[in-house]
Amino acid sequence: MLSYQSAPVRTGLPQSATLAANERIRAIQATGESVVHLAFGEAGLPVLPEVAAALSAAATENSYGPTAGTEAVRAAAAGYLSRRGVPTEPDQIIAGPGSKPLLYALLTVLPGDIVLPRPSWVSYAAQAALAGKEVIWVDVPEHTGGVPDPEALENALLEARWKGQRPGVLVVTSPDNPTGTTPDAELVRQVCAVAERYGLVVISDEIYRDLAHDPDALLSPATVFPERTIVTTGLSKATALGGWRLGFCRIPATREGAQLRERLVGVASEVWSNPAMPVQTAAGYLLDEPTEVREYVRMGRDLHRRVVTEAHRLLVAAGASCRSPGGGFYLYPDLEPARRRVRLRSGMDLAEVLLTKYRVGVLCGEAFGDDPRALRFRMATSLLYGANDVQRWEALHSADPVALPWIADALNRLAEAVDDLTGGSTG
Amino acid sequence: MLSYQSAPVRTGLPQSATLAANERIRAIQATGESVVHLAFGEAGLPVLPEVAAALSAAATENSYGPTAGTEAVRAAAAGYLSRRGVPTEPDQIIAGPGSKPLLYALLTVLPGDIVLPRPSWVSYAAQAALAGKEVIWVDVPEHTGGVPDPEALENALLEARWKGQRPGVLVVTSPDNPTGTTPDAELVRQVCAVAERYGLVVISDEIYRDLAHDPDALLSPATVFPERTIVTTGLSKATALGGWRLGFCRIPATREGAQLRERLVGVASEVWSNPAMPVQTAAGYLLDEPTEVREYVRMGRDLHRRVVTEAHRLLVAAGASCRSPGGGFYLYPDLEPARRRVRLRSGMDLAEVLLTKYRVGVLCGEAFGDDPRALRFRMATSLLYGANDVQRWEALHSADPVALPWIADALNRLAEAVDDLTGGSTG
Repeated sequence: MLSYQSAPVRTGLPQSATLAANERIRAIQATGESVVHLAFGEAGLPVLPEVAAALSAAATENSYGPTAGTEAVRAAAAGYLSRRGVPTEPDQIIAGPGSKPLLYALLTVLPGDIVLPRPSWVSYAAQAALAGKEVIWVDVPEHTGGVPDPEALENALLEARWKGQRPGVLVVTSPDNPTGTTPDAELVRQVCAVAERYGLVVISDEIYRDLAHDPDALLSPATVFPERTIVTTGLSKATALGGWRLGFCRIPATREGAQLRERLVGVASEVWSNPAMPVQTAAGYLLDEPTEVREYVRMGRDLHRRVVTEAHRLLVAAGASCRSPGGGFYLYPDLEPARRRVRLRSGMDLAEVLLTKYRVGVLCGEAFGDDPRALRFRMATSLLYGANDVQRWEALHSADPVALPWIADALNRLAEAVDDLTGGSTG
Repeated sequence: MLSYQSAPVRTGLPQSATLAANERIRAIQATGESVVHLAFGEAGLPVLPEVAAALSAAATENSYGPTAGTEAVRAAAAGYLSRRGVPTEPDQIIAGPGSKPLLYALLTVLPGDIVLPRPSWVSYAAQAALAGKEVIWVDVPEHTGGVPDPEALENALLEARWKGQRPGVLVVTSPDNPTGTTPDAELVRQVCAVAERYGLVVISDEIYRDLAHDPDALLSPATVFPERTIVTTGLSKATALGGWRLGFCRIPATREGAQLRERLVGVASEVWSNPAMPVQTAAGYLLDEPTEVREYVRMGRDLHRRVVTEAHRLLVAAGASCRSPGGGFYLYPDLEPARRRVRLRSGMDLAEVLLTKYRVGVLCGEAFGDDPRALRFRMATSLLYGANDVQRWEALHSADPVALPWIADALNRLAEAVDDLTGGSTG
């Protein structure tokens, strides 16, 4: 009997760290034990009733649609981006079942190795490996994540070329996952200038865009460097429809962009065909942004901001160091002071202690490409809003969500765990 | 300005031939012109109201679920296969957004090059190319498609090894796309015996299983060769939900199967996360097969059988040679007699003449890996059932669907075109 072991290395991927952690914690919770679940980047909000109604109304749509998405969803996506200062025509849009498969197709199709900020979202590096590409890691600045430090980027590109690598694609994320920060406009300009000088294509992952605390302060690389920036986004975060799988990307309006589009449609047509049609129709409604959708997104943004800001305050008070949040629902604390007090050799040790001793589920920095020894982790506050839709609606409408007992208790359990590990801010 | 042209060869895939043809024909139809659209393998039936209701009832489900699919959908899928003589536990199931992405993940993860019957479905070879694998083509027998001729298979495997290729995976399809035939049990046993002798893994694509004219006569390789057969199927054909994107695969209940499962979940978690959650819930309802679903599938099977059988009769009468249909909604005629009468150098020429001169849309055999010079094409009869759901329901309930004017007219236009090209059966 032959075994399957001889598969090429690039297919020996473990399950995505975020999805694996989520399934592990859900299994503990299923035994009736309470876990403060901070390990998964799900938006944690109930479905807007009008969106559920739009899906229901589309429940008889069973045709395969166009590979790039229906005209309606592409027009709505183009309008969505145009209203955000990135003028877009429908034929610049490709819709897919999530931005994840689109990112995978992009990393597969675009030439060259992949330059990633360290830390960055777990799946960029895993997708690069699956696509047979090398990853060139570049540290982020002290005060923000989501983009590499411009000087470090330039050094890394020179070194990569010297080593025979072929850096081709830079991925940036704003607001950032995992740090929850939003790089300022000047930094984005500097990074785009380096990308231009070195002939990189920029993929700008803007899935958290509408959750920026100050959306007007965001600068998209698509504005600074339009001819070589590809934007990806989707419905998973601000509109809380992760499980529905709908994302889209925007291709530059250039001749090279048109070639790229053809290649992406080729891969899409052989890997996934199209996003679920009823979901596309509901997405068209959402991306047209009627009043109730805009209001829902605003309420969600406020809730995320309130809770993540309070979590940040508590963490710092408990002795962690942590960048200030600028959007989304993540924090990326560093518990270095705990190293002296507790036997911890790695971020993975730290995450394990947090889960097994304190029943707090987080994801260690190593999952994001960070130094395995660093005592850093990513935490998402978005699964604290409630155990059911009644609680989640209450949180959404609450004037003081961090005072709701289920949110306050969870944040306190986190703060106590951190305080216990670090000895507190005065420890 | 760098161009994107330097991408590796394996990413230079054109759009899937079936999806591209569908989009081209839809564009002609959108101008108001009538085209007999036989080029696309969509089931062409309306959504069962109970299925639409199941989707609507699940419209508030927005979580990311487990990568392999919800417990409910995996249990329902296991029951579905167990009732078909392939005993299956839920943890042998992985659900995905269509069987297409699952097939892609399988071809990526399983070691070795890919052995394909010639002709076979357009996407197997394209996916193999995307996964960086070589394709070893083996002709099908005279009387049936879906499996390679066993003797030719053995010769091809010996030759491939001699050439340094590493045949690892054999893909078979029953009922077959493109030939519409169903290999008999003895042939399946012979092919499995060769696969076993040469250490191949068999992927058995059973997406058309419930549309076999005689389902009891079908023999799955999973029954003959259980320890190394992977079954793929989905909701796109018998339950007519292609646009909803829900498929699943069954992994052998072996230690190697468990390893394979882990690798597949790894790829799935980095490429697509999970199928749309409301669709998974509706799929659970469908795969439990309540009475109304069984009745709907039976009616659909009868309609497909009646129309494809009549189309076969007309084609043969008009001078084509064509294997007899055994299931599904495809035929794979050969118009070799037309070569003497019309200036046709290839199957692509033939498809082009059929579309531009006769307004009949088909897909040439070359798209399925067949000899480009052969005057063969695949035609699907399933898009003839109606221009809207009222007509489609009427076709489903009709005692004599081939007498319905919109179906009869389309079949006659096809027959007239073939007769004109070949000179008729006496031409």
